[in-house]
Amino acid sequence: MSNARIGILTISDRASRGEYEDKGGPAIRDWFTRVLISPWEAVALVVPDEQQLIEAALIELCDIEGCSLVVTTGGTGPALRDVTPEATIAVCSKMMPGFGELMRAASLKFVPTAILSRQTAGIRGKSLIVNLPGKPSAIDDCLNAVFPAIPYCIDLVEGDRLESDPKQCNAFRPQSAAIRKN
Amino acid sequence: MSNARIGILTISDRASRGEYEDKGGPAIRDWFTRVLISPWEAVALVVPDEQQLIEAALIELCDIEGCSLVVTTGGTGPALRDVTPEATIAVCSKMMPGFGELMRAASLKFVPTAILSRQTAGIRGKSLIVNLPGKPSAIDDCLNAVFPAIPYCIDLVEGDRLESDPKQCNAFRPQSAAIRKN
Amino acid sequence: MSNARIGILTISDRASRGEYEDKGGPAIRDWFTRVLISPWEAVALVVPDEQQLIEAALIELCDIEGCSLVVTTGGTGPALRDVTPEATIAVCSKMMPGFGELMRAASLKFVPTAILSRQTAGIRGKSLIVNLPGKPSAIDDCLNAVFPAIPYCIDLVEGDRLESDPKQCNAFRPQSAAIRKN
Repeated sequence: MSNARIGILTISDRASRGEYEDKGGPAIRDWFTRVLISPWEAVALVVPDEQQLIEAALIELCDIEGCSLVVTTGGTGPALRDVTPEATIAVCSKMMPGFGELMRAASLKFVPTAILSRQTAGIRGKSLIVNLPGKPSAIDDCLNAVFPAIPYCIDLVEGDRLESDPKQCNAFRPQSAAIRKN
Repeated sequence: MSNARIGILTISDRASRGEYEDKGGPAIRDWFTRVLISPWEAVALVVPDEQQLIEAALIELCDIEGCSLVVTTGGTGPALRDVTPEATIAVCSKMMPGFGELMRAASLKFVPTAILSRQTAGIRGKSLIVNLPGKPSAIDDCLNAVFPAIPYCIDLVEGDRLESDPKQCNAFRPQSAAIRKN
Repeated sequence: MSNARIGILTISDRASRGEYEDKGGPAIRDWFTRVLISPWEAVALVVPDEQQLIEAALIELCDIEGCSLVVTTGGTGPALRDVTPEATIAVCSKMMPGFGELMRAASLKFVPTAILSRQTAGIRGKSLIVNLPGKPSAIDDCLNAVFPAIPYCIDLVEGDRLESDPKQCNAFRPQSAAIRKN
């Protein structure tokens, strides 16, 4: 079983210039290190909040690096420089609105400003792209909410198989999944 | 009172080739048979997961068959061949995001993979089109969730009047509905 | 501290012809009068359900009148003349899907037909545009749900500062907000 590859894309003007320590990317890596029990490796990039550069990084992580899952951190708010969702939509062939809905609903239990997040998710080829917030604590809340559906989603687009520790976060595959392949 | 017409569109490569018994279409028909008390008739079609053929079937059911309500089953997941939402968006003049949100929230009570459904709904002329899942048990969960709003929605687009058995599923029409027509 | 400006746009064929007393606009004004404690003034307009006229009014309220917040009432349903969301999408550079999701979820506690509302929100320049329902009681439910996130959203797009009476409706600004500006 070869390593599954997970792209971790930090989107931040300040982090890309080295003015600010990237905290979102490491928080995502820590979460997957704790939860995944199948072999995997991270491919991490940092880009500024420029739509064209974000799109290029997403395409590289999906098409060249062969990441079955690409998670972004940062750039999902309402401010002028926040363009991560627009870049995500531009590179995906299919959008998955349920991810954004559930992540906002999950974050809303903690802060009323959760509705300001424009996070989305979509499919590009055999890769799933998911936008996460910039703030480390909010990253955990969002991954805990949506990860249970991620391994089966990647199965359906014929990406790498991910297995999680059910004591950490319980990935769900329908019982009919094996049958449906026949 | 003439029969209201309800289009039931099964979208499945295997069912369209006769390799697989269509279970979604009959499950939808059974649900409406149990719930509706006003006269109605079904117009059922089966097409493969091809966007152009799905669009053509939706247009036929709305514009030629005069169905006030068209429900689809299948093709709403993330896989390459799942293009039902894209076909629905292409033929509708107005999208109704609340249907997909509520169906995903309702299904999420049963399976965490509910967020993988890209179901949507929209208006084409005097018809409401609603995407349902492919799995019969999930069809019932989704119709139970959204049907209460469907008869009034169809009233507002000047389609056929639907009446339901309140013991089965309680259609809601605001008290101001009659007044607003004046 | 100069007055913050709030645009209140009533969208109704009958109200624009004077055949019907506008109740939505005054309900919105009453809500803000009760809740806001920082200085503000309303800029109120009434237009018919014509997409081009709605777009022109939204642009005027944002770009010429300098309203940091523009709220609309009416025109969000499925009927042929309901085009407020389409006009909103046409004039915004960024959409904020969390507003519509939360307003529908909040209204769904009262009426199952809440899913028929196509309300959305978005950013145009330094202004936030939010679609509210036409019915006064539903306006209050929606503003109570989403207002807590509105002042911070307007801060992020560099609009006017809004302060609310926490006993009426508690606007939330993250503790990191001041730090993040540095």
